[in-house]
Amino acid sequence: MHKAVILTIGDELLIGQTIDTNSAWMGGELNKLGIRIEEKIAIQDTREGIISGIERAMSKANIVLITGGLGPTKDDITKKVMADHFGMKMKFDEPTWERIEGLFARWGRSTTPAHRDQCYMPDGAKILENKMGTAPGMLFEVDGKMLISMPGVPYEMKYIMEYSVLPMLEENYTDQAIIHHTILTAGEGESRIAAQIEDITERLPEHISIAYLPNLGTVKLRLTAIGKDKNKLTEEVKVYGSQIENILGDLVYGHNQENLPSVIGKIALEKKLKIGTAESCTGGLVASKIVSIPGSSAYFEGSVVTYSYKLKETLLNVNTDTLNKQGAVSEETVNEMVAGAIDHLGVDVAVAISGIAGPGGGTEEKPVGTVWIACGNKKKTVTLKIKAGKNRQKNIEYASNYAMNVLRKFLQAQ
Amino acid sequence: MHKAVILTIGDELLIGQTIDTNSAWMGGELNKLGIRIEEKIAIQDTREGIISGIERAMSKANIVLITGGLGPTKDDITKKVMADHFGMKMKFDEPTWERIEGLFARWGRSTTPAHRDQCYMPDGAKILENKMGTAPGMLFEVDGKMLISMPGVPYEMKYIMEYSVLPMLEENYTDQAIIHHTILTAGEGESRIAAQIEDITERLPEHISIAYLPNLGTVKLRLTAIGKDKNKLTEEVKVYGSQIENILGDLVYGHNQENLPSVIGKIALEKKLKIGTAESCTGGLVASKIVSIPGSSAYFEGSVVTYSYKLKETLLNVNTDTLNKQGAVSEETVNEMVAGAIDHLGVDVAVAISGIAGPGGGTEEKPVGTVWIACGNKKKTVTLKIKAGKNRQKNIEYASNYAMNVLRKFLQAQ
Repeated sequence: MHKAVILTIGDELLIGQTIDTNSAWMGGELNKLGIRIEEKIAIQDTREGIISGIERAMSKANIVLITGGLGPTKDDITKKVMADHFGMKMKFDEPTWERIEGLFARWGRSTTPAHRDQCYMPDGAKILENKMGTAPGMLFEVDGKMLISMPGVPYEMKYIMEYSVLPMLEENYTDQAIIHHTILTAGEGESRIAAQIEDITERLPEHISIAYLPNLGTVKLRLTAIGKDKNKLTEEVKVYGSQIENILGDLVYGHNQENLPSVIGKIALEKKLKIGTAESCTGGLVASKIVSIPGSSAYFEGSVVTYSYKLKETLLNVNTDTLNKQGAVSEETVNEMVAGAIDHLGVDVAVAISGIAGPGGGTEEKPVGTVWIACGNKKKTVTLKIKAGKNRQKNIEYASNYAMNVLRKFLQAQ
Repeated sequence: MHKAVILTIGDELLIGQTIDTNSAWMGGELNKLGIRIEEKIAIQDTREGIISGIERAMSKANIVLITGGLGPTKDDITKKVMADHFGMKMKFDEPTWERIEGLFARWGRSTTPAHRDQCYMPDGAKILENKMGTAPGMLFEVDGKMLISMPGVPYEMKYIMEYSVLPMLEENYTDQAIIHHTILTAGEGESRIAAQIEDITERLPEHISIAYLPNLGTVKLRLTAIGKDKNKLTEEVKVYGSQIENILGDLVYGHNQENLPSVIGKIALEKKLKIGTAESCTGGLVASKIVSIPGSSAYFEGSVVTYSYKLKETLLNVNTDTLNKQGAVSEETVNEMVAGAIDHLGVDVAVAISGIAGPGGGTEEKPVGTVWIACGNKKKTVTLKIKAGKNRQKNIEYASNYAMNVLRKFLQAQ
């Protein structure tokens, strides 16, 4: 099986100034080709850092993808370090210069001496065209290994990957297939899910593995199969996947790239149901997640965020009496919020959330983290209480995820 | 100078299923303490991967922070591999078990056998409390190096870092002082800000640097000073900081750990103003950001998210005529949305947003990315139009940030 290491160069990655999305994208693309990613290493923009990283990468893999450290400023030294390390001289590359001159002419700007310096390339490296910027990519073949160096600007890297690197890898470096299948669940914790499906996971063959990725009320289960025969792997993963889903039942809300808002959208569209939200402690977060999906205007009408008692009364018809006797965080209140939302928003199905996000506002009877959720239509409303933790932001996220899952299940049952 | 390597464990990071934000945050925190981050390495969740990563890390640094690979399920093997590698036996840790039982009792749920297994810890590792989840952190001291292993769930890792790791590092592993001072701006781009303050930044002394961190309508300017004398550095950074702020004027909305919602809250509280939002394309995101601040119920009343034309009329009194003639994305509509929100929400100041987030819905006259924002009270409303890009999620974030800045400036002027 071919193996790859991704090397990313630059202090901004190490000190947390930039979140590295490049390597995640590259990893996803390599993985689709069945190339195993051994490691990702982020290194300093220094000679020693780059050499040490390259040596490590070459000891681990036969494909090394490098980003960053290429560009017109002085702190970009990758190219020279690699040329020295592999014993290559620098040579002026005329086509690169012509391309840069063309780019600047088109932008109506003039080049600087730094751009001419940028055209000196290691003699022996193959130049990979970059139509998105000035620094081209470079391909080195050394000791039977392939090293590719690209600029760190995301769209420049992606251009070189898509037009040069991925087609070449697909042609020459795919021998084993890797199949992933992710089952998305909500409403139960990692360990409880693991216990439920233990009978299946214990008899998974060696070449199929399962991983659990929990996050605030949701758990992703990822099945990974590695082998020669892509179709056979796909079939096997499908069989184990459906066995797992049979056991987990309606904890499962979707697969792979889906998420709760996209699944809610899919069902609402299918069933031609208009939806809306009535939110207190989540403050509009559920609504904002629903509209993150393109085309959500086809099923999402709107939302009322009633943070104060008064607005619960005026915008959602919650009875003053209910609020005074049961409190804003109560089954009765979320029930009335649903009815009020259906009425005021003119929707078929509404979900309501009211809770104590903290850090203040908790009582002995209703501690911080207590959240009531209701979901219903004109005929029927379901309610439930959840107990979140003490962290405000986490409680809000958890309540939002939970509420979306309640909405998803209610829509499915229509 | 002390050196650190951050090791992150898990295939989900290598295959691009999860974007690694943990290590960026950890890098930022270490950097603040003046600890140099040598490398970040993402490795596979296998015995060989973990051992090879640990060996590399220990050869490069005296502080090794490890995340991931701890949890109640079988795919989490870090703990056992580390115990074996350092020749430690596993021992049942009673306090951890008591804590887990307590957590589950509070949640009203029962533990599983997997949770008991989770309490076996390497005998010789120091346990670091994790109040956010079941898996505690572990501290190993080996060959004069310190290794800390934490779960990969972001808020669990952050809890352990904030309560155990960072205080210990600050006490024992800082020899040089690093002072950061961050100036938060909104409403202008990076290059334009850089040009405005060039006269100051060009004469910064060698030991003080400036970094620009742009993000969708906001730019953070971070001044960093390194040296022996903490008080002197603090004073210097303060002087340069105020020179920069004098030039940037009301582009500056806050400092350091503040953010737009916290600044909005501070001003609203100070001026005793109740606020609310009327949102279309942002779908409640502005409201949800405002309520992310503890205590926001003191000044935030609520919000109306009107995604449909109809709700703009019924919940915000926008004239049918305005919608038909000017469209939902127009100066007139957001103006009327503000008036409607002040009326229906009973607030002193409201902000309204209506735009075309995309990918659909654009026209030649109003392309995707066109967003109108208005902010006002009963007497006066200001409006402005922004042109965002083509990416839906980015447009929504950009419009939300912009709207919050408009609200911040309007509140400041009251």
